[in-house]
Amino acid sequence: MNKYIVELIGTFFLVLTVATTAILLGAASPLTPLAIASALLVMIYAGGHVSGAHYNPAVTLGVWIRGRCASKDAVLYVAFQLIGAALAVLAAKALYPDQAKVLASLAPVAQAVADTAKGSGATCPVAAVFPVILAEFLFTFALVYVVLNVATAKRNAGTGFYGLAIGFTVLVGAVAVGRISGGAFNPAVAVGISLLAKTGPLTFCSIWQHLLGELLAAAAAGLLFRTLNADDR
Amino acid sequence: MNKYIVELIGTFFLVLTVATTAILLGAASPLTPLAIASALLVMIYAGGHVSGAHYNPAVTLGVWIRGRCASKDAVLYVAFQLIGAALAVLAAKALYPDQAKVLASLAPVAQAVADTAKGSGATCPVAAVFPVILAEFLFTFALVYVVLNVATAKRNAGTGFYGLAIGFTVLVGAVAVGRISGGAFNPAVAVGISLLAKTGPLTFCSIWQHLLGELLAAAAAGLLFRTLNADDR
Amino acid sequence: MNKYIVELIGTFFLVLTVATTAILLGAASPLTPLAIASALLVMIYAGGHVSGAHYNPAVTLGVWIRGRCASKDAVLYVAFQLIGAALAVLAAKALYPDQAKVLASLAPVAQAVADTAKGSGATCPVAAVFPVILAEFLFTFALVYVVLNVATAKRNAGTGFYGLAIGFTVLVGAVAVGRISGGAFNPAVAVGISLLAKTGPLTFCSIWQHLLGELLAAAAAGLLFRTLNADDR
Amino acid sequence: MNKYIVELIGTFFLVLTVATTAILLGAASPLTPLAIASALLVMIYAGGHVSGAHYNPAVTLGVWIRGRCASKDAVLYVAFQLIGAALAVLAAKALYPDQAKVLASLAPVAQAVADTAKGSGATCPVAAVFPVILAEFLFTFALVYVVLNVATAKRNAGTGFYGLAIGFTVLVGAVAVGRISGGAFNPAVAVGISLLAKTGPLTFCSIWQHLLGELLAAAAAGLLFRTLNADDR
Repeated sequence: MNKYIVELIGTFFLVLTVATTAILLGAASPLTPLAIASALLVMIYAGGHVSGAHYNPAVTLGVWIRGRCASKDAVLYVAFQLIGAALAVLAAKALYPDQAKVLASLAPVAQAVADTAKGSGATCPVAAVFPVILAEFLFTFALVYVVLNVATAKRNAGTGFYGLAIGFTVLVGAVAVGRISGGAFNPAVAVGISLLAKTGPLTFCSIWQHLLGELLAAAAAGLLFRTLNADDR
Repeated sequence: MNKYIVELIGTFFLVLTVATTAILLGAASPLTPLAIASALLVMIYAGGHVSGAHYNPAVTLGVWIRGRCASKDAVLYVAFQLIGAALAVLAAKALYPDQAKVLASLAPVAQAVADTAKGSGATCPVAAVFPVILAEFLFTFALVYVVLNVATAKRNAGTGFYGLAIGFTVLVGAVAVGRISGGAFNPAVAVGISLLAKTGPLTFCSIWQHLLGELLAAAAAGLLFRTLNADDR
Repeated sequence: MNKYIVELIGTFFLVLTVATTAILLGAASPLTPLAIASALLVMIYAGGHVSGAHYNPAVTLGVWIRGRCASKDAVLYVAFQLIGAALAVLAAKALYPDQAKVLASLAPVAQAVADTAKGSGATCPVAAVFPVILAEFLFTFALVYVVLNVATAKRNAGTGFYGLAIGFTVLVGAVAVGRISGGAFNPAVAVGISLLAKTGPLTFCSIWQHLLGELLAAAAAGLLFRTLNADDR
Repeated sequence: MNKYIVELIGTFFLVLTVATTAILLGAASPLTPLAIASALLVMIYAGGHVSGAHYNPAVTLGVWIRGRCASKDAVLYVAFQLIGAALAVLAAKALYPDQAKVLASLAPVAQAVADTAKGSGATCPVAAVFPVILAEFLFTFALVYVVLNVATAKRNAGTGFYGLAIGFTVLVGAVAVGRISGGAFNPAVAVGISLLAKTGPLTFCSIWQHLLGELLAAAAAGLLFRTLNADDR
C-alpha cells in the first residue's frame, strides 16, 4: 500500500505545481518551468526508494514494457496517480478561488466556440493538431528514455543523479514546446489541467492529442530500451 | 554545542536571504525563489553532517515525531534557530538601512488600518485566511515529507542528493503559493519576516495562520512517515 | 551500434532544444540558456554509460586526442551526431511551421546583403570575426576541459556530478558570450543552427569561424589534459 | 605545477564570467547570478581533484588556517589566481571591445568626481562604507564556511555535492547583496573587476572595503572551523 500512497502524494504535488504556476497564475513567474521540474525532482528523491517514483502513467507504461513493473502494480499506480491529480485540482482551486472563478467563467465562451464548430460538423475548434501530438510525443519520449536509463539500467544502479536528470527533462520540454502543447508529457497532468483550463493548448477538447502522443512515446521508449539492452532485463 | 551553533548559522543565512531578497528589495530579482532555495541547499550541505541541518522548527518537530531528535535537542534547536532568525533581521537592516526605514514608516499606516478594523471588532485586517493556512500547510508538509525521506530514511543513507531535494522543495512552494502566504514554510522564517514586513501576506498580524499551518503540517508528515515506515525507526 | 544510436538521440534533443528555444522563438524565455544546458545534462546522464555521451564533435575530438575514443568510433560518432542535428532541424520546423516560414523568408534578404558584399569582393557580410572565434574557442575549451576532467580522469571515476558540470558549462558560455557568437561550442549545433538561421551571429556565412574556434579549442584542451596527466592514459 | 595551472584556469573562467556578464553587459541577463555561480561550480568539479579548486584568495586563506594548504602553496595559489584574473580582464576586453571602450570613457568622469572629493580632503567619493564591508564579510564567511565543511571535513569525504554547494553559495550572495557590494566575495574577482569597472559598487576606489571584508571573513571562518572541529585536523 505504501507505494500507492507515495505515487498519490508525488503526483498530487506535481499537478498542484503545474496548476498553480502555469494555469491559475498565467505566465506569472519566469521560474515556472524550473518550479515544475523541481516539483518532479524533489518528489522523485522523496519517493523513489519506495515506489520508483513514476508520478506519470506514461512512465508507468514505459517501465511496464521494460519489465520492471508488475501488471497489477501498473494499473494501481495509474489509478492512484489520477486520484492525486484530481485532488491537486481541488487544492489548486481552494488556494486560488478567485482565479478559479475567472477560469470557470470562460467555460460558456469555450462552449459557444465549440457549438459554432459543431454546426460545421466538428465538436471542438480545429487547431494545428500535428505539432501538438509531435511535441507531446518527442518530450514524453525523452522523459521515459531518461527514466529508463537513469533509474532502471543496471549500470546506473546506486547513482544519485536520477531525480535531477528526470526533473530537468521536463524543464527542457516546457521551455522548448510549452507554447505548442502546454508541455504536459504526462497523462495525469494532462487530465488534471484539462479539468481546469478552458482555453489554451491543453483543454478537455484537445486531450486526446496529448494522450495519443504521450502513450505512443512511452511505448516507443520502452521498446527501444528493450531492444538496446537485451542483456539488462 | 557544535550542532546548536550550526543550526544558528544555517538559519541566520536562510532568514537573511529571505529578508534581503523578498522583503527589503521587493520583487527585485527573478531569481529570488532560487536564491532562497539555494541558501537552504548550501547550508544543508555545510551543516548536515553536524546537526542534521534542520534550520526550521517545523522540520525539528517532524524529525522529533519520527524519532530522530532527542527532546532536549529539539528545544535547543528551535531556540538557536529563533536566535539566528533574529540576528538575520538585524543584519538585513544593517545591510539595507534605507529600505528598512521605508518599511518601518509603513507601520503607522498598518496600525491605522488595524485600528479601523478594531472598530469593527477585529484587531487585524481580515483577509482570506483559509488559503494562507492551506498554502503553508501543503508546502510545509511537502518539505518535512521530503526531509524525512531523503535525510532520515534508512534506504537513502549515504546518498548525496538530500540538500538539492530539500532546498528545491522551497523553490517549488515559493513559486506556487508565494503570493498567497509569502512562502515561509518555516516558523523561524515566519517570525523573522513578521518582525520586518508591515504589509503583504506575512506580518505580525497574520503570523498565527503561518504557525498553525506549518506545525500541523510537520505533525502530519511526521506521523505519516512513522505509519508508512514501521520497520525504520 | 547502441552507442551510435545514443549519440544520435542525445545530439537530436540538444539541437532540437537550441533550435526551438534560441532560434524559432527568439529570446522568448529567460530560462533559454538553462533549458539548453539541461538538455545536455539530461542526455549525458541518460547515455553516458553507453556511449560516453559526447553529442558534440569537438568533445569527440578532445576525447580522441586524450586517448579514450578509438579512431573508427570517433568518425562514426561525428557522423551520427550530424545526422541527429539534421533530424532535429527537421523536427523543429515541423513543431514551429509558422516561425520556420518567417525565418526562411529572410533568406533572400540575407542573399541580397551577401550579393552587395560580393560586389566589393566578399561573399558574406564582414562583421567582427575575431571576437566570434575567441568566444567559441574559450568556451569550447572550457567545455572539453570539464568533460575530460570530470568524465575521463581516473580520480573522478564513480562520481555522479559529471552531467551537472558539463551541462552547466554551456549555461555559463551561453550567458557570457551568446550575444557574440550565438554560443554553439559544438560543431553539430553550429551546423544545425546554420541550416535554420538566416541572420544573427551563427549563419552559414560565418560557420567557418565557429568550426575553427571549436576545433582549435578541442585540440588545445585534449593536448593540455595529456600534458598535465601523463600518469592517466 | 599542475595545481597552479588549474588554479589559473579556474580563476580565469570565473573572472571572465563575472566580467562579461555583470560588467560589460550590464544587467543583461536575468540568469547572470546563476551563470557566475555555475562558472565556479563547473571549475570546481573540473579541478577539485587536482588543486582543491580554490580560485579565490579568501578560500586559500581559510583552507591555510584550517591546516589543509601548505604555506608555499598558499602563496603560489594566490599568485596564479591573480594572474588568471588579469588574463580574464584582457580576454573580456577582447570579447567586448565596444563595451570596454564605453567603460574606459567613464574614467575621466570618475576622476573628476574623485578630484572634487579630494578638494574636500578625500581621494574617493565617500559612499556608505559599512554595508559594503558587511555584505562582503557575511557572504565570504558563508562561502569559506561552506568550502571548509563540504570539501575538507573528514565526514564529507567522498561525497559529490561540493561543487553544487560552493557554487550556489555565490548565487545566494549575488542576489542578496549584489547591489550593495557588487557581490565579489573573492579578492581575485574584486581586483579583476576593479581594473574594469569605473562606476558602481566595486571600483579601484572602494577595493579596500572588499578586501577587508573578505579577508576578515576568511580568517573568521577558518578559525571557527578549527574551534568546532578539534578532532578533524
